[in-house]
Amino acid sequence: MMDVKPPTAAILLIGNEILSGKVDDENARYLVRELRALGVTVGRIEVVPDDQADIATTVRALSARFDLVFTSGGIGPTHDDVTLPAIAAAFDRRIVRQPELEQLMRAAFGDRLHPRDLRMADVPDGARLERGSANIGNTWPVVVVGNVWVLPGVPSIFRRKFEAIRELFRARPIFARVVYSREGESPIADALDVVVAAWPTVEVGSYPHVDAPDYKVKITLDGRDRGLVDAATADLVERLGPAVVRTE
Amino acid sequence: MMDVKPPTAAILLIGNEILSGKVDDENARYLVRELRALGVTVGRIEVVPDDQADIATTVRALSARFDLVFTSGGIGPTHDDVTLPAIAAAFDRRIVRQPELEQLMRAAFGDRLHPRDLRMADVPDGARLERGSANIGNTWPVVVVGNVWVLPGVPSIFRRKFEAIRELFRARPIFARVVYSREGESPIADALDVVVAAWPTVEVGSYPHVDAPDYKVKITLDGRDRGLVDAATADLVERLGPAVVRTE
Repeated sequence: MMDVKPPTAAILLIGNEILSGKVDDENARYLVRELRALGVTVGRIEVVPDDQADIATTVRALSARFDLVFTSGGIGPTHDDVTLPAIAAAFDRRIVRQPELEQLMRAAFGDRLHPRDLRMADVPDGARLERGSANIGNTWPVVVVGNVWVLPGVPSIFRRKFEAIRELFRARPIFARVVYSREGESPIADALDVVVAAWPTVEVGSYPHVDAPDYKVKITLDGRDRGLVDAATADLVERLGPAVVRTE
Repeated sequence: MMDVKPPTAAILLIGNEILSGKVDDENARYLVRELRALGVTVGRIEVVPDDQADIATTVRALSARFDLVFTSGGIGPTHDDVTLPAIAAAFDRRIVRQPELEQLMRAAFGDRLHPRDLRMADVPDGARLERGSANIGNTWPVVVVGNVWVLPGVPSIFRRKFEAIRELFRARPIFARVVYSREGESPIADALDVVVAAWPTVEVGSYPHVDAPDYKVKITLDGRDRGLVDAATADLVERLGPAVVRTE
């Protein structure tokens, strides 16, 4: 799917607990790797507090700029769960009770259903439910509003839900090569400039490693066309000559 | 310092390597905890690619909105190091060679100085150099442009530099209490609503823990006034009654 122009994505983490350092993010860390493996380029990660206006402004901006937006967190029944009202505000929609979600909830909880639980069935008008793979077992559907995919903050549930929908996003794969240099960044910078200019579809990254045993710089070359990535790598290796420790 | 209104901060991580999942962020993870311990509220984290226009737009927005902005990454000598030109663009300033930085570099590198190294002495016009604590040893000064503090991406150097300047940011401390509930979020949500409304200067967070042995929800209460945080905690404990497993 989406074969001509590779899709771009943004990840929006919602939660004071990450900004205050009480909890380490696990979800963006997981999702960037998943999306990369699927061939989706992540162009931005934002972490914002549980503030409805802030979330709404951010969702509106990310939704307009990226093909896909994944949110994490803020969808429970308590006062600090404001993600769905914020997304409704971002798209100028009302909040409505989603009958299918309400029914799922009543069936799952039975007599133990608390009135506040039903708040989790209140979604922006026009939201759709995506189930993804048929193998998802009893996973709840994912609420999607426009291009915004709403995922929960609890890492184990975040992963389970993403696993159900991941194949919906598969795109052209990204090929990656690595060149390790025994020289530091400054002596190889001119050669990098030439390679960057010569291979415009290949993304070249240069990362100094101060503690590595046998190299000083790790150079990464990424692209959608394997032949071009390999050719750019060969070009770089030739230009760096004896500075190259090894390639991968 | 900054005693009346507690300062707010944003953290901007610059680097394709984090967005592609090649490297895990360590710097925001470290800095949110440091700033929290100093009493500085982090209001936003953004991760953006090595794109000069994107960085410039983001720096301009964050600088206007937060008291302090800390950037991480993109300040080496290679093609993908565009943070300083981007900050210059954000503030409509030229890039100029900073004579003190150039001198430091020439003294440190001597004959081994590569012409490209000097690119790291090219900073936005009007940037100042902050050294912070006198105990920093041979750490280089930190480049500061307006309220934007420019830190390197390599985690060990990021930390060493921040340690030198950290006391510049000390503010009124944040006091935190925790209440653990054996009931899930829905049954306690109404009590939380009352406490949130009754204690407007206390920030209340509710976090379900699906795998915890003896509780279902961790409730955090944060504020600058210890007495108010304690009073809000006592209020919540009374309202939750037998649902309380313990407090911290």
